[in-house]
Amino acid sequence: MLNFNQEKYLQVTRGAVALRSEIEEIVEKVSQQEYKNIFLLGSGGAVATFYPFEYMIKSTSSIPVYAEIAAEFVVMNNQQFNEKSLVILSSLSGTTEETVAAAKYCKEKGATTIGITGEYHKPLADTVDYPIVNYAENDFAGDSNQLILSFLIFNLMHKKGDFPKYEAFAEQLEALPELLLGVKEEADSKACEFAETYKDEPYHILVGAGNTMGRAYSYAMCVLEEMQWIKTKSIHAAEFFHGTLEIVEEDTSMILLKGEDETRPLMERVERFAEKYTKKLTVFDTQDYELKGIVPEFRKYLSPIVTSTVLQRVSVHLEEKRNHSLETRRYYRKVAY
Amino acid sequence: MLNFNQEKYLQVTRGAVALRSEIEEIVEKVSQQEYKNIFLLGSGGAVATFYPFEYMIKSTSSIPVYAEIAAEFVVMNNQQFNEKSLVILSSLSGTTEETVAAAKYCKEKGATTIGITGEYHKPLADTVDYPIVNYAENDFAGDSNQLILSFLIFNLMHKKGDFPKYEAFAEQLEALPELLLGVKEEADSKACEFAETYKDEPYHILVGAGNTMGRAYSYAMCVLEEMQWIKTKSIHAAEFFHGTLEIVEEDTSMILLKGEDETRPLMERVERFAEKYTKKLTVFDTQDYELKGIVPEFRKYLSPIVTSTVLQRVSVHLEEKRNHSLETRRYYRKVAY
Repeated sequence: MLNFNQEKYLQVTRGAVALRSEIEEIVEKVSQQEYKNIFLLGSGGAVATFYPFEYMIKSTSSIPVYAEIAAEFVVMNNQQFNEKSLVILSSLSGTTEETVAAAKYCKEKGATTIGITGEYHKPLADTVDYPIVNYAENDFAGDSNQLILSFLIFNLMHKKGDFPKYEAFAEQLEALPELLLGVKEEADSKACEFAETYKDEPYHILVGAGNTMGRAYSYAMCVLEEMQWIKTKSIHAAEFFHGTLEIVEEDTSMILLKGEDETRPLMERVERFAEKYTKKLTVFDTQDYELKGIVPEFRKYLSPIVTSTVLQRVSVHLEEKRNHSLETRRYYRKVAY
Repeated sequence: MLNFNQEKYLQVTRGAVALRSEIEEIVEKVSQQEYKNIFLLGSGGAVATFYPFEYMIKSTSSIPVYAEIAAEFVVMNNQQFNEKSLVILSSLSGTTEETVAAAKYCKEKGATTIGITGEYHKPLADTVDYPIVNYAENDFAGDSNQLILSFLIFNLMHKKGDFPKYEAFAEQLEALPELLLGVKEEADSKACEFAETYKDEPYHILVGAGNTMGRAYSYAMCVLEEMQWIKTKSIHAAEFFHGTLEIVEEDTSMILLKGEDETRPLMERVERFAEKYTKKLTVFDTQDYELKGIVPEFRKYLSPIVTSTVLQRVSVHLEEKRNHSLETRRYYRKVAY
């Protein structure tokens, strides 16, 4: 596959999977403390990665959960938050300013903190009670984080009595490095074709729902806008019909991220609309991938990670077809603001 | 003022204010039932109107609160929701399909339901336990809803012991019809100038934070996209720096909605950036309006309604300068989907 280091990918994702028992020990400890709610704090791609897990907790467990933007959280004086809260933060570099500030704020308030990050001896790992560390370069960090979060979140729900099938699920997660590699291989020609067709497209509408909404939000903002300087709108499938639909013309690009949770019918409604009113419709559907061995009832929990692993291939091909490096920035880390 | 019926505006907003004692009676009754959390359910503009109130509850009160998209809520099997939940729904026409479906779903589950709507004898009013009805035409419905919600939400928090200054605040709300009229008059020339300058602009980035984020989301989607067919991106001020900033060039229009809550510094950071990198910056700042008689500590709670009343003037001028009626639709209520 173009610009893909298979060995490194397997190393990073297997690294995440290998953390299973360490994660379960952390869950054991924090569950004994009887936390009363969970805060998922991050910025940009990190908070977007939390959104699907927020959705999955809401629809599976009685633990109150709040995904919040780190920089807003530290100023808003959130009244649900106190020393009985369990906070999960994530920053690959371990240096994202707002996230580190949020970790410190939470520690001062006496909450329990878990930090998912790429390195020890960086501010995030040094601040939180429980660092979970897996080294990953930027392009594979999403998959690594989502694997770690899958063990962490589903085990937390299990310990609260809300996800009795955790053992079976966790075993299946262990097969994901190879399965996701297979998804990438299957998706690659579609990704290449998309990049070729849309390389000069100036604007895309990305639509998600349920546990794919966070992926739509972050692919739009953190890849198309940040890394490719292409304008986007990301919108929830149900909300699409309350405004955004009116800008659709036959040459408006729409990208639908279909997953397999309860909100799938909402996506199908958008798909029927888009089929009629634009000639530029692309659907990335997790159902297109076999995921051999994954039990049907668990597939919906994997929609976000399957979607993002597919979209990674799209990024690589966009970079090539548009001759626009994914690393180029106008402002980020280039100017002060 | 262009296309503005002052008499009707005062009638609608005074109608909302006149509901105060009726709202307080409802709050009295539902508070006796000891609800354990609040769900704010709506679609499009209605859920967007809830977002600022969700923020204000989170930062003021210990009542857990969840603003959810109605169509997603009814399929997601939300585990925080049960017969101990208090649900607030809103639909001006009282016929919005997803909202009525959500009201029925909540009733079946035994939750307590309050519906804010424009007419009795319509599905929403007929379904909920407590209808709150104020007739309003589309262009003034936003202000009406926000006034009703201000009495409702702050009185709910007061009854939980979290907003002891409710009486003083409610008295100030009663002065808002005239004060908001004054804001419109003050804002009108700026709104007209904006419309003239940007009438041919094909794309805007709208930025909000805290209790103005919902206004940025809905003005982008429900007015610029739906009513004017102009492409937009709405983004939180803190999130802006995690991707969207990279598409800013000197001719990229940015619209900042500055309010007066704790997140104002996040907006100021975006403003400093925008001042440097685009020549097309517009700032709508609630601080520009005196709101004579409003106590400083209450001003922040009024940022959303002040912002939306200003933006209504922008809409009227855009309609004229662009010769594009706010009523014209390509799809909504014109085709089946």
